[in-house]
Amino acid sequence: MRINASRLWETLMVSATIGGRNGGLCRLALTDEDKQMRDLFVQWCEEAGCRVSIDRLGSIFARRDGMENSLPPVLIGSHLDSQETGGRFDGVLGVLSGLEIIRTLNDTQAVTRRPLELVCWTNEEGARFQPPVLASGAFVGANNVDDVLGIRDADGYVFGEELQRIGYAGDMAVGERALDAYFELHIEQGPVLDEAGIDVGVVTGGYSARGFCLSLEGVTAHTGPTPMDRRQDALAAAGKLVAAVYDLGWEYHATDGKATTTQLSCSPNKQGTICDRAAMTCDFRHADPSVLESMERTFLEAITEISRQTNVKMEITRRWSYGEEAFDVELQELVRKTARGLGVGTRDILSQAGHDAYYLSRVTPTALIFTPCKGGVSHNETEDIDLDRTEPGVNTLLHAVLARANR
Amino acid sequence: MRINASRLWETLMVSATIGGRNGGLCRLALTDEDKQMRDLFVQWCEEAGCRVSIDRLGSIFARRDGMENSLPPVLIGSHLDSQETGGRFDGVLGVLSGLEIIRTLNDTQAVTRRPLELVCWTNEEGARFQPPVLASGAFVGANNVDDVLGIRDADGYVFGEELQRIGYAGDMAVGERALDAYFELHIEQGPVLDEAGIDVGVVTGGYSARGFCLSLEGVTAHTGPTPMDRRQDALAAAGKLVAAVYDLGWEYHATDGKATTTQLSCSPNKQGTICDRAAMTCDFRHADPSVLESMERTFLEAITEISRQTNVKMEITRRWSYGEEAFDVELQELVRKTARGLGVGTRDILSQAGHDAYYLSRVTPTALIFTPCKGGVSHNETEDIDLDRTEPGVNTLLHAVLARANR
Repeated sequence: MRINASRLWETLMVSATIGGRNGGLCRLALTDEDKQMRDLFVQWCEEAGCRVSIDRLGSIFARRDGMENSLPPVLIGSHLDSQETGGRFDGVLGVLSGLEIIRTLNDTQAVTRRPLELVCWTNEEGARFQPPVLASGAFVGANNVDDVLGIRDADGYVFGEELQRIGYAGDMAVGERALDAYFELHIEQGPVLDEAGIDVGVVTGGYSARGFCLSLEGVTAHTGPTPMDRRQDALAAAGKLVAAVYDLGWEYHATDGKATTTQLSCSPNKQGTICDRAAMTCDFRHADPSVLESMERTFLEAITEISRQTNVKMEITRRWSYGEEAFDVELQELVRKTARGLGVGTRDILSQAGHDAYYLSRVTPTALIFTPCKGGVSHNETEDIDLDRTEPGVNTLLHAVLARANR
Repeated sequence: MRINASRLWETLMVSATIGGRNGGLCRLALTDEDKQMRDLFVQWCEEAGCRVSIDRLGSIFARRDGMENSLPPVLIGSHLDSQETGGRFDGVLGVLSGLEIIRTLNDTQAVTRRPLELVCWTNEEGARFQPPVLASGAFVGANNVDDVLGIRDADGYVFGEELQRIGYAGDMAVGERALDAYFELHIEQGPVLDEAGIDVGVVTGGYSARGFCLSLEGVTAHTGPTPMDRRQDALAAAGKLVAAVYDLGWEYHATDGKATTTQLSCSPNKQGTICDRAAMTCDFRHADPSVLESMERTFLEAITEISRQTNVKMEITRRWSYGEEAFDVELQELVRKTARGLGVGTRDILSQAGHDAYYLSRVTPTALIFTPCKGGVSHNETEDIDLDRTEPGVNTLLHAVLARANR
C-alpha cells in the first residue's frame, strides 16, 4: 500500500492558496484565513468518511472507526496555522499527510483494528496568541482551558471570542481521554536531512529550549543636552542585551547552541527622546540540558551587568522551558523498522523546534517523524520541500500507523 | 517695566491642561490638542490687540504694530507642540513669554518704533512629522513648502490634510519677507544653569548634531533549528549597533559628547522567528565639529563591521546635520548688557538641542536665551521650572526686545 503522492501535493497546494503570501503562508490562528482552511479541512475529512468533533479550544478531531471502537484511537496530526511570514509546509504537511493516509486506507477499503483519529491543533505557532503549542498543551493538562480562552493577542482580541467568531468553539472536553499513540510528521526546519540526503528523521528527543520575556524601565529625556551619565536609556539596555544574546549563540555555535532575540519594542520610540520602556523576548536552545543551564547563567549575568551599566531596571516577566522530552523508544524502533521495510533510509535526529508532539509525549507513546526541507529554511516564505523526498516519510508514517493500529 | 510673572504662570498652567498627561504634556503637532491650543493662543493674541496671520504651513504670526510699520518686525517665538511624553514648558515657555511681553507693553501702553511679531512655529518637535523644526526650516528656505505638505506621519496621515482638518492651512507665504531680528527664549533642557545657580544662558552657538536613519535587511528563519552561521538576523544587527552607539556616547562623555538610538522597530517581531527587517534612528552630538566628525567615522565603521559580522544589509536611508550655527554676536552682547542692567547674572552656553532659532539665524540676527529647568530634565513628563528663576530671563527678553525694536 502506498499513498497517492500527487493527490497529497494537490491538497497541499490548495492549502497554500488560503492565506498565501509571497509564495509563503500568513495564516495566523483564529483569523478569517484560519477559518477558511478549517472549513475546507472539515469538509475534506467528512468527504473521507470521518466523524468530526471540535474541542473547547477549537482543535479538530476527525475519526475513522476501526474494528474495535472501544479501544483508544491512534492519533495522527499537527497544525494548520502558520507564522506571519511562514511557509506552506510547516505543520500543514503533518495534518494533510494524515488526511492522505485516511484517503489511502479508504482507496483500499482497509479497516484497522483500533480507530484512527486525525487532529489539527489550534495555535501551534504562537505567532498570534502566546504561548505556542497552546491547545496541545491544554490537551495534556499543561495549560488551563479557561486561562487559554482568556488570552489576548497583541491587538487585544480575546482567544475565546475569536474562536466563537470563526465558529470553532466546540463543546468536546479538552483531553481527558485515552489515546493508544500519537504520530506527528513534520518538516525538519533545519538542514540536516536535506544535506545528508536522508528522507526520514526518527526524532529521539528535543533540544532543550528556554525562553524569557523581559520588561525594561528607564527614564525619558532629551537626546541632546542629557549627559550620558544621567541617562536611563531603556533602548540602549535592550540593544546591549540583544548583542549579548547574539554573542552567546556564537559562543555555543561549535556545539550547535542557538540564542535569539525574536521580539523588541520600545517607547516612546520617537526621534529626540530617550526611550523609557522596552520589552523583549529571548530564546536559547542546546542539545545538552547542562550546557543550556550554563547559557542561561551567562544570560542572567548579562542582565545584571547591563542593568548596572545602563541604570535601567530589567525584569523577567515570563520564562518557559521545554524540549527535554524523550520520545517513545518502542515507536522510534517501529518507525525505523517500517522505513527499512520500505527501503527508506533513516537517521536519528533531535528536534530543535517545539512541536505539539512534545506535549503529547507526556500522556501517550509518541512518534515524531521528520522529512527534509530545502536548505533547512523555515519560518520563511521561501520554505520549500521536494515531493520525492517527502513521499518516503509519508509512506513510512502510513505503515507505522497501520502496524500500531492493528497490533 | 517688568512682566507680570503670575499672569505668565497662569497662562502656562492653562496651556498645561490642553493635552496634559501624567503631569506633562502630549500635544503632538496638528492633533486635536494642538488645534485647541492654537485656537486659544489666537484668541489670547487677538485679545491683546494683535493681528493674526497664518502661513501655508500653519505657523501663527501675531503682529503688534509699532510707530514705523514699514520697518521689518522684531520676531519673538518658539513652539506650542510637544513630544509624546513631553513637558509643559519646552517651547511653550518661549511663545507664552512673548505673549506676556506684548501684554506687559499693553499694560504700560508702550509703543515700539518697529513692529513686533510673535510666532508659534508648526511641528518643532518632529515627534509626529519628520524631520523636526519643520516649519521654521521652510520659513528660511531649507525645506520646500510643497514637500512638507506631503509628509506623512507614522500612521499615514498627511501633513497638509491634517493642517486643513484643524483649520490652520493659512494662505500667507512661508518666509519671503524681511525680519529685523528673531528672539527665542527656551528652557535649557540640560542641567548647567540649574546647577550653576545662574538664571540666564546667552546661547553663543550650538552643539554639532548629526542624525541617521537606517534600514536593515536580513532573512526570516526559525529560531530553533537555524544554525548561527546561517542566520541573517536583522534584530541582532540592530541590537549590536544600538550597543555600539551607546558605547560611542560613553567614549566621548568626558568631553560632553552624546550618542543615542531613539527609534528601533523590527519585523516580523514574533516569537519563534528571526527578524528579517529593522529600522532605527541614531543621533550624535558634540560641541566640537571635528570631534563629531570622528564620532561619525567610528559609527560608519561600526555599521560596516556589524553588517559583515551578522550578514545583514544595513543602509543609511536619511542623514541630517545641524547645530554649527553661531548666534549673532551683537544680539548676544545686547542680552548680556540688558541682563546686567536688570541685575541678572548670565552665562554663555552652547545649545545641545535643536531649536527654531537655528534656522532663523540663517536669515536674520538671532538671539537664543536659555532659562533653567529643574535637574536638566526635559522630553519627560516631570519637566519642571521654577518661576522665580524664569522671570529674570523673561524680563531680560522684554528689555532686549524693546531695545532692539526701538533702535
